Amino acid sequence: MKLPAQSSSRLIVPRGFRFAAASAGLKKGGGLDLGLAEAPGGAAAAAVFTSNRVVAAPLEVGREHLVRSRGRVRAVIVNSGNANCATRSGRAVCEKVCRQVAAQLGIPAREVFPASTGVIGVELPAEKILGALPRLAAERGDTRRAVMRFARAIMTTDTRPKLAAARFRCGGKRATLLGIAKGAGMIQPRLALGKHATMLVYLFTDAAASPAALARALRAACACTFNRISVDGDTSTNDTVLLAASGAAGAGIASAADARRFSEVLTAVCRSLARQIVADGEGVERVVELRVEGAQSEAEAERVARAVANSPLVKTAWAGGDPNWGRILAAVGNAGVALDPRRVDIFLGSQLVCRNGRAVPFNERRAHRELSPPGFTVRVRLGRGRAATTFWTCDLTADYVRVNSHYRS
Amino acid sequence: MKLPAQSSSRLIVPRGFRFAAASAGLKKGGGLDLGLAEAPGGAAAAAVFTSNRVVAAPLEVGREHLVRSRGRVRAVIVNSGNANCATRSGRAVCEKVCRQVAAQLGIPAREVFPASTGVIGVELPAEKILGALPRLAAERGDTRRAVMRFARAIMTTDTRPKLAAARFRCGGKRATLLGIAKGAGMIQPRLALGKHATMLVYLFTDAAASPAALARALRAACACTFNRISVDGDTSTNDTVLLAASGAAGAGIASAADARRFSEVLTAVCRSLARQIVADGEGVERVVELRVEGAQSEAEAERVARAVANSPLVKTAWAGGDPNWGRILAAVGNAGVALDPRRVDIFLGSQLVCRNGRAVPFNERRAHRELSPPGFTVRVRLGRGRAATTFWTCDLTADYVRVNSHYRS
Repeated sequence: MKLPAQSSSRLIVPRGFRFAAASAGLKKGGGLDLGLAEAPGGAAAAAVFTSNRVVAAPLEVGREHLVRSRGRVRAVIVNSGNANCATRSGRAVCEKVCRQVAAQLGIPAREVFPASTGVIGVELPAEKILGALPRLAAERGDTRRAVMRFARAIMTTDTRPKLAAARFRCGGKRATLLGIAKGAGMIQPRLALGKHATMLVYLFTDAAASPAALARALRAACACTFNRISVDGDTSTNDTVLLAASGAAGAGIASAADARRFSEVLTAVCRSLARQIVADGEGVERVVELRVEGAQSEAEAERVARAVANSPLVKTAWAGGDPNWGRILAAVGNAGVALDPRRVDIFLGSQLVCRNGRAVPFNERRAHRELSPPGFTVRVRLGRGRAATTFWTCDLTADYVRVNSHYRS
Repeated sequence: MKLPAQSSSRLIVPRGFRFAAASAGLKKGGGLDLGLAEAPGGAAAAAVFTSNRVVAAPLEVGREHLVRSRGRVRAVIVNSGNANCATRSGRAVCEKVCRQVAAQLGIPAREVFPASTGVIGVELPAEKILGALPRLAAERGDTRRAVMRFARAIMTTDTRPKLAAARFRCGGKRATLLGIAKGAGMIQPRLALGKHATMLVYLFTDAAASPAALARALRAACACTFNRISVDGDTSTNDTVLLAASGAAGAGIASAADARRFSEVLTAVCRSLARQIVADGEGVERVVELRVEGAQSEAEAERVARAVANSPLVKTAWAGGDPNWGRILAAVGNAGVALDPRRVDIFLGSQLVCRNGRAVPFNERRAHRELSPPGFTVRVRLGRGRAATTFWTCDLTADYVRVNSHYRS
């Protein structure tokens, strides 16, 4: 199931949710930096969080709220421009914001799910957020415009909003799923599935499901989508994926067939968002689909994929459309897998360029041509077994350096 | 023991060695690309090699020659411009070159120690090297000029030759040690100590020592020098460090005191070369001395140091002189060490910027000032134990991307 990137004209807004955005003054240049998503009738929810040992305050609070509410969410509050991570006032500020959102909407604080994204280690000015809450509450709506404003409010160095949506049938009725994401930098989500990326992803469906069923479907979907991408190899302190189900479609995910269909739809939406995040990564000009095959286990294939995806020399060669496959082979050799280089094959686009660990003649101009468009495929065969994985990554351009080396003050 | 970088006027040439260089036509722009170092009376030798699973042909041949000669070397032959790695003809070409060098000098082929550095996966044209051998043999000399030409011949994207030398006493006599290195890119040597970086390092001494004593001293020196640097986090397929002792000083490393003194001198020379390699890394503008303290073991400290040293977001912040310590904390949290972020302290230059995992007020202008010169210090305390390590790394600049993204053809 492949989904196109969503333009606002084709956006589907699931029933049972309202959206709003405001400028709270957190972003230096102004612009939307505070988003609210509300499920007025409540929603069942499940979430997964970063595996970084350093975890921002809103992730701690959000996880606790989900436990205390037994997987119920009525409001999602997100600010961009500040990660509220490694701050002295982090928890107190986050809890104050949640309490104020709850008071504004007339709901319990435990049903507010917070998130923050931006610079680490700078105190988050609570008063700016609190001051913007009345405006936020006043403009809640279920229009496509409201959704697009929310999607813009959660952006940091993203250049465009990222959305994906799908319709599906469940319990004999029509239901919808909408996903909204931000990414750009510090992107190598390694979501600790089972417990809990500054990738933020919000998934809203109007089907009905229990928090446990949502958690199962979410983990399975993340494992092969968000946990298979890397822009720069840095895993954020704030990565969060939330799936909320309002049930407003009047039908639940009841049968095994329903669950299977929902899982497929969820995975397709997550895959579309994951690819959009890579394509809009900081300075990215080329998205690379990296296929690693012939591994002894999927974990081994993943390990090799990450070694290749995060090699600065491989990524800079891609930035030049350079078929310098020797750098790929060197990265494979550094993956920490006890492989035999004499069994490694490498394909750049349609051509085999390395067989059994050695150069084979290939058409270099054709390779350069195939590596020049905004997306291409690289395939590595390890010759060790039958496990495989697909990983999405990107080039490393001078623009990435420019975006990230500007002195903040 | 701190050693200054060597200029050619202060260079010490150890007795018992001769050097030569030639242009064999391997480098696109011309220039020196073939180097010969000869010990006419023979030398005891020990070497360490990369831990990449992919290993270039000359490393295999060099290791075998050292075994067959029982640790004796009479000639070192090095070409730049081509790594002779992952090539179909790799071994055959390398062996042919060794045989021809041996014939030219009238020595056994097993006493020739080969190395190559440059692009991976392109066949090495043996005839170009063979054609240049007579010129190389004709100009062998023990002058400083000959040493400097050798040091230039082994360079790839290096902008300057890297040398370090020291005098020491052993067995009551004066002896000398000269080190010559190249680095620039694909630099995160992880020398497999016990068995065996495209870092190439040649260390020549006129003291006498057994191959076993040389191996012990070399492993100890590499562990805290070359194995504690990273330019780009990529470990080469060709990294090689060779230590050769001619004994021409007429004195051996006999006593325990001699061995200790030699070890100190060797470590100091290696440390100087390691820092020169980082300082001349591709696009490097700032060298960072990264000190990780309070670890449970040195291996743990090293793991944290590598996570920080290889984070693109940390390195790009350094390129801007940006005191964005939150990126350092996030990298620490990603190191795969079960640390408690609430015990982590971070110092940028002279200032504490993060205490117990949280922001502390600091003078941001002073921090920017301290992070702007070509060298500064970053200190991370983990609060877990008493082990520590010092690691040398660098910023990631747009120049690094420029150097590495140019399409080869």
